Amino acid sequence: MDIEKPSNKTAGKPIQCRAAIATAPGEPLVIDEVIVDPPNSHEVRVRIICTSLCHSDVTFWKMKDFPAVFPRILGHEAIGVVESVGENVDGVVEGDVVIPHFLADCTECVGCRSKKGNLCSAFPFKISPWMPRDQTSRFKDLRGETIHHFVSVSSFSEYTVLDIAHVVKVDPTVPPNRACLLSCGVSTGVGAAWRTANVEVGSTVVIFGLGSIGLAVAEGARLCGATRIIGVDVISEKFEIGKRFGVTEFVNSKNCGDKSVSQIIIDMTDGGADYCFECVGLASLVQEAYACCRKGWGKTIVLGVDQPGSQLSLSSFEVLHSGKILMGSLFGGLKAKSDIPILLKRYMDKFYNVVLDFCMLSSRLHDYRLNRMVTYYCQHIFDNTSSGLMFLFQELELDKFVTHEMKFEEINSAFDLLIKGKCLRCVIWMGE
Amino acid sequence: MDIEKPSNKTAGKPIQCRAAIATAPGEPLVIDEVIVDPPNSHEVRVRIICTSLCHSDVTFWKMKDFPAVFPRILGHEAIGVVESVGENVDGVVEGDVVIPHFLADCTECVGCRSKKGNLCSAFPFKISPWMPRDQTSRFKDLRGETIHHFVSVSSFSEYTVLDIAHVVKVDPTVPPNRACLLSCGVSTGVGAAWRTANVEVGSTVVIFGLGSIGLAVAEGARLCGATRIIGVDVISEKFEIGKRFGVTEFVNSKNCGDKSVSQIIIDMTDGGADYCFECVGLASLVQEAYACCRKGWGKTIVLGVDQPGSQLSLSSFEVLHSGKILMGSLFGGLKAKSDIPILLKRYMDKFYNVVLDFCMLSSRLHDYRLNRMVTYYCQHIFDNTSSGLMFLFQELELDKFVTHEMKFEEINSAFDLLIKGKCLRCVIWMGE
Repeated sequence: MDIEKPSNKTAGKPIQCRAAIATAPGEPLVIDEVIVDPPNSHEVRVRIICTSLCHSDVTFWKMKDFPAVFPRILGHEAIGVVESVGENVDGVVEGDVVIPHFLADCTECVGCRSKKGNLCSAFPFKISPWMPRDQTSRFKDLRGETIHHFVSVSSFSEYTVLDIAHVVKVDPTVPPNRACLLSCGVSTGVGAAWRTANVEVGSTVVIFGLGSIGLAVAEGARLCGATRIIGVDVISEKFEIGKRFGVTEFVNSKNCGDKSVSQIIIDMTDGGADYCFECVGLASLVQEAYACCRKGWGKTIVLGVDQPGSQLSLSSFEVLHSGKILMGSLFGGLKAKSDIPILLKRYMDKFYNVVLDFCMLSSRLHDYRLNRMVTYYCQHIFDNTSSGLMFLFQELELDKFVTHEMKFEEINSAFDLLIKGKCLRCVIWMGE
Repeated sequence: MDIEKPSNKTAGKPIQCRAAIATAPGEPLVIDEVIVDPPNSHEVRVRIICTSLCHSDVTFWKMKDFPAVFPRILGHEAIGVVESVGENVDGVVEGDVVIPHFLADCTECVGCRSKKGNLCSAFPFKISPWMPRDQTSRFKDLRGETIHHFVSVSSFSEYTVLDIAHVVKVDPTVPPNRACLLSCGVSTGVGAAWRTANVEVGSTVVIFGLGSIGLAVAEGARLCGATRIIGVDVISEKFEIGKRFGVTEFVNSKNCGDKSVSQIIIDMTDGGADYCFECVGLASLVQEAYACCRKGWGKTIVLGVDQPGSQLSLSSFEVLHSGKILMGSLFGGLKAKSDIPILLKRYMDKFYNVVLDFCMLSSRLHDYRLNRMVTYYCQHIFDNTSSGLMFLFQELELDKFVTHEMKFEEINSAFDLLIKGKCLRCVIWMGE
């Protein structure tokens, strides 16, 4: 990507540019001129290069009640170039290529300092219409009326303002139409397998819902060395797509006859899966995923967003007696500032894959002894877990997630494609 | 303890001895003569030295419907000496001192071979009235009527028959009136902190219910190096008892005014506890424990046994967005055959404590740098986690759990004491 040279012509001044504005629930976005204020303290203003569409954008575009607000600039998967920085901004300067992330990573609070989780205590996740630090907007229309932000990103605009807790500087040589996927969806799925579940080499994984998040989980599980990756969906065609992401078996939950999905999975796996991921967003499916897990250690990881107020009901007896683990995964358990660059490196850097290819000349990847050998040697080099190690040896294949690319003017077509299930990720080039 | 010399006088023959028989729900146990058959294949017959009373004995003594059955020989916390062995018994011979354990550890199945859990796949836990391998009884009365087993142990008898999957050989020099506690209750609590939760040095722990299981969790959390151990109970006097087990703070859940317990705990801990243990057995308290946990990584560990059929309800939103973890702990996540000897060693062997005392001459235990130093050096010696390491340096104080000791003939008094909450652990000497 060309690196934008800082001009300083616009720094400190409002910028007039185009944005796709959600004006009312479910109504087509309106591309119009907006005013983007200069960044305040701890903020940067960014020229968006690429943005991609995620289901959460559609959810909050359709939604009629709070936390939906209008007019609003949606969009939260993107990559861009820093146009100017406000006061008290360290580590990012004009011209840096950055990826915004909806989940804050301030790096300083108790949550961000801990190795055990990825939830920032200083800026907890919420669907806010404002900037995180001062609860105001940086967008207005040409009449001076406020336009609202979306999850601290609002990337459906040629320029946006981001808090430094929501932006990570990345390698400027990355292809922007791939790197933008790491802003949310792909990171969420891959991270759920890698960071949240810590999928182990040789394990069995079940994924409920083979949409783009579920496929990203499959990609993550494949990277971690899972041997069996079982997809569950109501559309059998998803299996063919899933195979490209590492899915090895498929269950159509509509064709289970008298049995429940969990009974079928338990039979297939001789007792249950090591990891079950719910990527649809239904409490009833979380319960089914929990039932699919192997007694003793099976982990159920919740990624799907259910309706507000929905309750998840589990048998107290089973919680106590099954040894199973239930956990959620927001943004895949990733710490944006440290983990997004790791994922990008796994896409960019093929060095380890060359090594692996060499090893594979004489043996298959899933050969137990090879895995043991690789693990043994690398533990002394990388001081890492076996799944972490496998991860280092694999290529994160971002290309296969991008099914469509289009111009900013076509953004409403991208919404159509996503709603109709005809795309995985649709990348939108913001243009000049 | 005196080691019984194998006499072989009784091997292969039925033994007539005394047992305390539960004849009807809630009726006093009847001490009567019973016939104990010789062990079948994969079984040993054991002379019980000491047994202690656990709440589960009371639960199934009171219970009117299935899985309660009568007549039955209750009791599942014990220690004894092997009187004779059946065929196909490896590793245990006549005269060995053994501890029975209700949770099977066959050491051979996929569950027992895995490091990740403690649930035996070959002999899954159930409240069975029979021996685990052939679904028959080894007990009858003098008229030849069958008497039922209880959780594969039935220790309220001078002799009992145990499957080898339910018995672990231990150091014969252990004091039997302490070692028997590791058969269930103390192991369950200590193990929940050590193995299930893997409580980390310096962490904050909340325990709902300061009965003997909750106090054993406190003991385990103390051993793992927890800094704050907050007890929650409806009886304020429990705090004084709790202090002896490491409890540092107390909340009486009846005196919370307008606030919920979780609100108070979140305020006390500036955001929530690292680990919450539910030791009462109420789904509503599990939900409260879950609410008490710190967002990002808080773990809720369920130990309490709720009514059959009770449902645990959690907000789908919170499961997804909180980063919290829910897990159950059966027998404290311990693998009986390997972990009971470790716990016994922590009671018996004061070597590490001497080392620790030396370190403490110049620094306090909770000094961060000391912990780091100890951790650093010991990782190269023991190849273990920080909590595992702390564990090695502490003494498991079994003595303080034993509040009463009595003769077999007084077993109904032991039931009274436990029901009235007047004892922690009451040890019963089977005696001559």
